[in-house]
Amino acid sequence: MANNSFGEILRLTTFGESHNAAMGGVLDGVPAGVSINIELIQKDLDRRRPGQSEFTSARSEADKVEILSGLHFDKDDNGCQLTLGSPIGFIIRNLDKKSSDYDALNDIYRPSHADYTYQSKYGIRDHRGGGRSSARETVCRVVGGAIAKQLLGKEVVIQAYVEKMGGVAIPQNAEYDISNSKNSPVLCPHSETSKAMEAKLKETASKGDTVGGVISCHIKGVPAGWGEPVFDKINARLAFGIMGINATKGIEFGSGFSGADRMGSEENDQFESIEKTATNNSGGIQGGISNGQEILFRTAFKPVSSIKIKQSSMNKKGELVEFKIDGRHDPSVLPRAVPIIEAMAALILADFFLRQKTQLMK
Amino acid sequence: MANNSFGEILRLTTFGESHNAAMGGVLDGVPAGVSINIELIQKDLDRRRPGQSEFTSARSEADKVEILSGLHFDKDDNGCQLTLGSPIGFIIRNLDKKSSDYDALNDIYRPSHADYTYQSKYGIRDHRGGGRSSARETVCRVVGGAIAKQLLGKEVVIQAYVEKMGGVAIPQNAEYDISNSKNSPVLCPHSETSKAMEAKLKETASKGDTVGGVISCHIKGVPAGWGEPVFDKINARLAFGIMGINATKGIEFGSGFSGADRMGSEENDQFESIEKTATNNSGGIQGGISNGQEILFRTAFKPVSSIKIKQSSMNKKGELVEFKIDGRHDPSVLPRAVPIIEAMAALILADFFLRQKTQLMK
Amino acid sequence: MANNSFGEILRLTTFGESHNAAMGGVLDGVPAGVSINIELIQKDLDRRRPGQSEFTSARSEADKVEILSGLHFDKDDNGCQLTLGSPIGFIIRNLDKKSSDYDALNDIYRPSHADYTYQSKYGIRDHRGGGRSSARETVCRVVGGAIAKQLLGKEVVIQAYVEKMGGVAIPQNAEYDISNSKNSPVLCPHSETSKAMEAKLKETASKGDTVGGVISCHIKGVPAGWGEPVFDKINARLAFGIMGINATKGIEFGSGFSGADRMGSEENDQFESIEKTATNNSGGIQGGISNGQEILFRTAFKPVSSIKIKQSSMNKKGELVEFKIDGRHDPSVLPRAVPIIEAMAALILADFFLRQKTQLMK
Amino acid sequence: MANNSFGEILRLTTFGESHNAAMGGVLDGVPAGVSINIELIQKDLDRRRPGQSEFTSARSEADKVEILSGLHFDKDDNGCQLTLGSPIGFIIRNLDKKSSDYDALNDIYRPSHADYTYQSKYGIRDHRGGGRSSARETVCRVVGGAIAKQLLGKEVVIQAYVEKMGGVAIPQNAEYDISNSKNSPVLCPHSETSKAMEAKLKETASKGDTVGGVISCHIKGVPAGWGEPVFDKINARLAFGIMGINATKGIEFGSGFSGADRMGSEENDQFESIEKTATNNSGGIQGGISNGQEILFRTAFKPVSSIKIKQSSMNKKGELVEFKIDGRHDPSVLPRAVPIIEAMAALILADFFLRQKTQLMK
Repeated sequence: MANNSFGEILRLTTFGESHNAAMGGVLDGVPAGVSINIELIQKDLDRRRPGQSEFTSARSEADKVEILSGLHFDKDDNGCQLTLGSPIGFIIRNLDKKSSDYDALNDIYRPSHADYTYQSKYGIRDHRGGGRSSARETVCRVVGGAIAKQLLGKEVVIQAYVEKMGGVAIPQNAEYDISNSKNSPVLCPHSETSKAMEAKLKETASKGDTVGGVISCHIKGVPAGWGEPVFDKINARLAFGIMGINATKGIEFGSGFSGADRMGSEENDQFESIEKTATNNSGGIQGGISNGQEILFRTAFKPVSSIKIKQSSMNKKGELVEFKIDGRHDPSVLPRAVPIIEAMAALILADFFLRQKTQLMK
Repeated sequence: MANNSFGEILRLTTFGESHNAAMGGVLDGVPAGVSINIELIQKDLDRRRPGQSEFTSARSEADKVEILSGLHFDKDDNGCQLTLGSPIGFIIRNLDKKSSDYDALNDIYRPSHADYTYQSKYGIRDHRGGGRSSARETVCRVVGGAIAKQLLGKEVVIQAYVEKMGGVAIPQNAEYDISNSKNSPVLCPHSETSKAMEAKLKETASKGDTVGGVISCHIKGVPAGWGEPVFDKINARLAFGIMGINATKGIEFGSGFSGADRMGSEENDQFESIEKTATNNSGGIQGGISNGQEILFRTAFKPVSSIKIKQSSMNKKGELVEFKIDGRHDPSVLPRAVPIIEAMAALILADFFLRQKTQLMK
Repeated sequence: MANNSFGEILRLTTFGESHNAAMGGVLDGVPAGVSINIELIQKDLDRRRPGQSEFTSARSEADKVEILSGLHFDKDDNGCQLTLGSPIGFIIRNLDKKSSDYDALNDIYRPSHADYTYQSKYGIRDHRGGGRSSARETVCRVVGGAIAKQLLGKEVVIQAYVEKMGGVAIPQNAEYDISNSKNSPVLCPHSETSKAMEAKLKETASKGDTVGGVISCHIKGVPAGWGEPVFDKINARLAFGIMGINATKGIEFGSGFSGADRMGSEENDQFESIEKTATNNSGGIQGGISNGQEILFRTAFKPVSSIKIKQSSMNKKGELVEFKIDGRHDPSVLPRAVPIIEAMAALILADFFLRQKTQLMK
Repeated sequence: MANNSFGEILRLTTFGESHNAAMGGVLDGVPAGVSINIELIQKDLDRRRPGQSEFTSARSEADKVEILSGLHFDKDDNGCQLTLGSPIGFIIRNLDKKSSDYDALNDIYRPSHADYTYQSKYGIRDHRGGGRSSARETVCRVVGGAIAKQLLGKEVVIQAYVEKMGGVAIPQNAEYDISNSKNSPVLCPHSETSKAMEAKLKETASKGDTVGGVISCHIKGVPAGWGEPVFDKINARLAFGIMGINATKGIEFGSGFSGADRMGSEENDQFESIEKTATNNSGGIQGGISNGQEILFRTAFKPVSSIKIKQSSMNKKGELVEFKIDGRHDPSVLPRAVPIIEAMAALILADFFLRQKTQLMK
């Protein structure tokens, strides 16, 4: 059972391989009457798009989304269209495919890539650009997430940013406004750290190597009461959605792994008022349900596996081969992963918003 | 949409509040003809049961499972019964309920508990023992997991153990056999560390305080090819299942957060042979699919929120109240969480085993 | 994939074989704060219970339901308890099992029973009372449906009755009040027809034979706008739920098969006002969505397959054997099927009621 | 919860409104390594396409399917491509839209159409060509079904045909080969009846009226053991899928409604051998599971609601208006519904084939 769908009431189904005709998806469950601005979807796609800066892959995809269904034909003065309550189908063509770049890979399993695992699973694979395992699939999540954001409205604000990359981290007590990240080519809101990260990236790229890092995500405006007990806790669903993004290594909520070292008397979030706890070690979630505080989580990403350095790889015959990966690759996945994390968070929260509508009679 | 079910083909549905009549569940999707030994289920329940050692809650539940359906009436010489292919329904009665212990809580939201969030969500709650938010729900997961283990068979070995508790961790280069954990009252396989943890727990309990920690899980014997691309990666599903366990704060796979600080050239798992990679930073999963190496993940748990120390709490009227929690509580959730983690891992892997049967024609 | 669950937001999962310990289920998705009277559940169970009249099986099951979870412990003056928003688990013990009655069946596949098909499917079966294939499973649907009715409230009125049995039908132009069915031992609201049916049943039973028939169901009070386009039309879901009841042969909506012979100009339901169409050939459903008129459907049931007359059967070795079924069986399933149809309709409509809450923003 | 998806392991999700950019879908769960010939998909689309004969709508859609993903790029000598195990995304553009034909409908609810029900449900609708309620949606089911047929292979043969239309029926004891239906413009395999149907259709069309009828479906080659007990019986799933097709009024299996009038001793299918029963009143299904006999079902369709005769309709203000529908409409939906029924049956059976793989260990 393949299950290329995510979400319960708001459900995104995606399809597409990196070098087949198109990526695409269906977002089902959007209520009728939501005002959608397609330009806002495109804006998020542009944030994820390769080829935007010197730090991202040179693959030059326009990544223009075509919405095929689900919107009423009338456009208002702001270019918005109302949803019909029917599923929103969309495609993004794969245009700048250099499939020949991958000819050498037809026969080879790259270290820490999904080549060997796909071959083991299916007995067949599309080696071109990683096929279905390519992070290009996330383009569909960004479309879904951009619609989910418009469904959630302006009260819920989801902001992710690069907190650490290549070992360069924002200092613990630094003060900064996280919305500054949009001014940084590496999406780090602390300008000195951003510069250090840029230098680190350049140096890394020059060696043909890659780096990983950590992205923080802060979500404001979620009222108390979203999320489900037991299996579908908000943290469980966020972990599910985020760990499904390519190259993720771990996720933690609120005080996370460091909270595991504290005493209960230190970790507990005591009440200051019904609206506010003195601390937010819980990261806005208690018993899997939002408590009205900011939702906080951090995601670890591994360095990109495609390095331009010789590695011990395996060919189809099971022979070890020295292999150096060429082609167009990012030195780090982090800047482009920021809108993807936001998109998954938006999809999950919008789903919980709709789910909560069914939990009370009125 | 509440969704008290977990899994796609092998699906566990649970019900029950801590102080209502019973906990129970339905495990659907078990193939016909699997040999089930009910005593093995009971054995796992006993590992999770409170009141086993000085370090666990004094609530004394026999936690005897009653299997109500799904097994053929014939028992073989080993006490095993074959599955019928129909759903396995089961209950565990709630017997040692001291509901009066909780009378004071009807009116109060405890810090970092799910009291306020449940009230916000439902407008009603069963305050006795935490109601549905109680970790007592996990008793059903242990039943499901014990059946899943028997379905998986002996090739797949899932072993979790306490790696760190109350800040006391197994030293990085220590050598030990993880199956030793069963000899430790705190389920730590490194005997010196186990003793230090026991001391830490006693000291903590004497102060009425609590500690958190980290549980490691190692899974051997999963062949290459399990797991699904995109949303249902093995890591995504494990994160989903594990972050749905009470008191979890984070999860990481393979090299995890520390891997995020490495270069690609350090992190990549180069091939030594088709069966073996030189390192296992990927934690046995690439592109969301098992690669035949050991599956490795670590889970952070917060300290138990029920401390016997005065805290600033909130009553239903929205007034701040000083409140000290009494009743029977564990100084740490970790030892009892070990079988729960194993159970969730077993449920997820057995589901992937069944899912993989549908991915190839033969 | 077994899928012993039904419904999307309101989801009933059932378990149990006829002669194992208990039948039971979990009803998930009931909103918090619904007032539930357990006696009303028992009342519906009593309508379905065997041994109520001379026309039903002599198996004497008390069929007392035990609700294990999901309700708040407080009872109001009417004996009602509020739902907590958590899943409602329940069991009904199998008490009056005469398993020895079935010893002869261990080895034999009865004509038109599920013996051969279960054996083919699973390679194993519980032959006692039909195991999982027994209509005893529907006891769980009646529990779920009785809760669904209380969720729907008094505006939605679901009434089924026996329209035809053993070839004896209510005359086409007869006038009668369908709620009279409760005064008929065969649940036929037209008293003359009821008497003719009773005579037919007695005669049939005396020969060891059985009869089938047709049950009509009328549903009042469903507002316009429930149901989903495309796959989850109200008629599609009703057909799904009703054709899943044992012994059903067909279902038709509104004018049904006879409507297929009409011209469009005859069949179309022209408007008399926004609230009323001149005819109701559509059976209250257009494009899969309720239009505010009465929802109407008819279900055909085959005669009970267990006849006390010799038949050409098959044994496990594949040999033809003459076989006469003994034991306690109904001469017709129809009277007891009436509450089951109502239960399935209630579950489906309550699900659509909850689903509709997610289709609009406000 | 909208749920524009159908199937459990093999799951088709569809999108599209009649006059928006495109219809499309995603078929998820196709195993890897299935050989797919796109021309066979197109062939089934051509059978469903409008404008093929004088008896179908003049809307002239090429209905060329574009497969966007899920197939390996290599084509073999027969033009076949292997599936990758990833989801198959596809679109069919809406080209011959005469949206202006529908201008008058923006304001009007047509009798027995979904206009009023959609407006009631969503508060908004796309009136052009019926929007999402258009039978044009079924084009996606035909694509899915054509792939499902190739997955099932040649052993399973699904054949539907028009048995009755406009009151003209194949005589009960007529002998004919059902595969002759492909030579009939109305897809009736009995040539005399076909001619009478054609005459009836011409006469009906000349009056601006429409007719309904009944389609029979015969399925050969399904082995014993497919289908699931309880809710997901083969008959339940077929009823679910078929009653979700536009304009259906009822469905019956095997002896159907007429079987409800028989005695058990007449209706029971006695064994002749392990492979064959003397009769097939069960329609190949017992206890919801296939028994190896032919699967038989009949579906009733209402006459097309779009008639060119004045009717009492309703406008948005709630006023009665006399209204005559113009535009391009079929005098009967039946000939074009034949491939749609086959497609739904194929999707359902292929799903059961895959589901059965998970029910046994080996």
